Amino acid sequence: MTDTNAPIGVFDSGIGGLTVMKEIMHQIPDEKIIYFGDTARVPYGSKSRETVTKFSRQIVHFLESQHVKAIVVACNTASAYALDELERETEVPIIGVVKPGARAASEVTKNGKIGVIATAATISSAIYSSYIKKKKPDVEVIERACPLFVPLVEEGLWRDPVTDEIARRYLAELIDIDIDTLVLGCTHYPLIRETIGRIMGERVTLVNPAYETARELKELLQREELLRKVRPALGDNQYQFYVSDASEKFKQFANSIIKYGILSAKTLNVEGY
Amino acid sequence: MTDTNAPIGVFDSGIGGLTVMKEIMHQIPDEKIIYFGDTARVPYGSKSRETVTKFSRQIVHFLESQHVKAIVVACNTASAYALDELERETEVPIIGVVKPGARAASEVTKNGKIGVIATAATISSAIYSSYIKKKKPDVEVIERACPLFVPLVEEGLWRDPVTDEIARRYLAELIDIDIDTLVLGCTHYPLIRETIGRIMGERVTLVNPAYETARELKELLQREELLRKVRPALGDNQYQFYVSDASEKFKQFANSIIKYGILSAKTLNVEGY
Repeated sequence: MTDTNAPIGVFDSGIGGLTVMKEIMHQIPDEKIIYFGDTARVPYGSKSRETVTKFSRQIVHFLESQHVKAIVVACNTASAYALDELERETEVPIIGVVKPGARAASEVTKNGKIGVIATAATISSAIYSSYIKKKKPDVEVIERACPLFVPLVEEGLWRDPVTDEIARRYLAELIDIDIDTLVLGCTHYPLIRETIGRIMGERVTLVNPAYETARELKELLQREELLRKVRPALGDNQYQFYVSDASEKFKQFANSIIKYGILSAKTLNVEGY
Repeated sequence: MTDTNAPIGVFDSGIGGLTVMKEIMHQIPDEKIIYFGDTARVPYGSKSRETVTKFSRQIVHFLESQHVKAIVVACNTASAYALDELERETEVPIIGVVKPGARAASEVTKNGKIGVIATAATISSAIYSSYIKKKKPDVEVIERACPLFVPLVEEGLWRDPVTDEIARRYLAELIDIDIDTLVLGCTHYPLIRETIGRIMGERVTLVNPAYETARELKELLQREELLRKVRPALGDNQYQFYVSDASEKFKQFANSIIKYGILSAKTLNVEGY
């Protein structure tokens, strides 16, 4: 029987997944979490299904070795390309960010026109469209890759005329089609949600899969009777961070997302898992 | 004794190194070349010395297994972080792109003010500055990281108002200081040399390390009596391409740089080397 005190494993191609971890910390504050960011091989969003699946599998093996009670794939690209295979390969309950985001979008839309923005890999998998249509077959889903959003966010241009200009180009088609719901299908995008929201206009609801995923994780743990009952004691390492590459850039950017001892992240050789 | 008919090995974090390969193909057209692009783990420019050295070492092992007669590190970041260690570890003659670029810059400058633009990693190594000052101690070297140039080039925005605006920001300081020589210290940058040249103005000479590296490679092969005497026969696979990830994006971008059968690149699991 799984120990309710065991930690939750959360992983991402890099540090964008910290936006998901932050939601989990907020919604189920008693849980212990082990976060892994594959900073040596980031990004995943421009790479192939085979490579993303191989990398994700190694990380799941690492998290299994840490006896986690559940795994959250906090990366849209890994959720899109690898989740089905990972589910078959591990006995640990595992959820991604795509299904919760797709479900929320299908519930939110009123005019049946949903936009999805994400990395090139996530868009080429067409997985959001497929999940949304399973929930609500009649909707129209328009997907758009936004490859420059991640580098712009990582360069710190969260509010900048250049980010505005690029966003206007990426989003023009979605505005023309008159969507009323937009899924932020990459963990970096909530960091520029103000820019995206301003350009899309007030009538468009932005769906943040990070929030939905934390909610779904909580429900899963309740259902499986795996929810932790008491908050860990001080000094019990409630949150642990592992990365495959400890660059300065990682530290600075990570600390701009989440202010919790990221500087003490351990470096892990994940290729060996 | 090394076979003069053996191929030259060229590697890069991804496909930017094809700009170096192109120069080599042009300057010593009889040589066979094996190109390796680490497309599964690209980019290197935002990662740590340890990670870049580990990845580079694996690639050198692969190239050694192909019995290359010389190795060109066609990546500025790998040249900056890993070349010294690689030199100690391999018996194959190995050259990077940094020294040839630095030497050319030190010869070109008249007013003794040299700018270097490159990835965050290359700039943080301060290696260009160090090599240039070894050649010419009195010069002033100003280095500037340009992290958005690679994503902008890969998004195809080679001539675009957004690239202009970002370039103006990155280059402003170098213009103020009145440099007369600018090193394009990342293999992607020659692809936007028109934009960079226009912003810097006609009085600034742009140094392309790709060109200098091919020249230095030719001199090295001559000196070591390793130059190939005859062009390979048709069907003798003069140019071979290996990548660690064969994504669509790679193919499209690679073919925009070099038009030589990139579509038939082989995928290699380089972690095993």
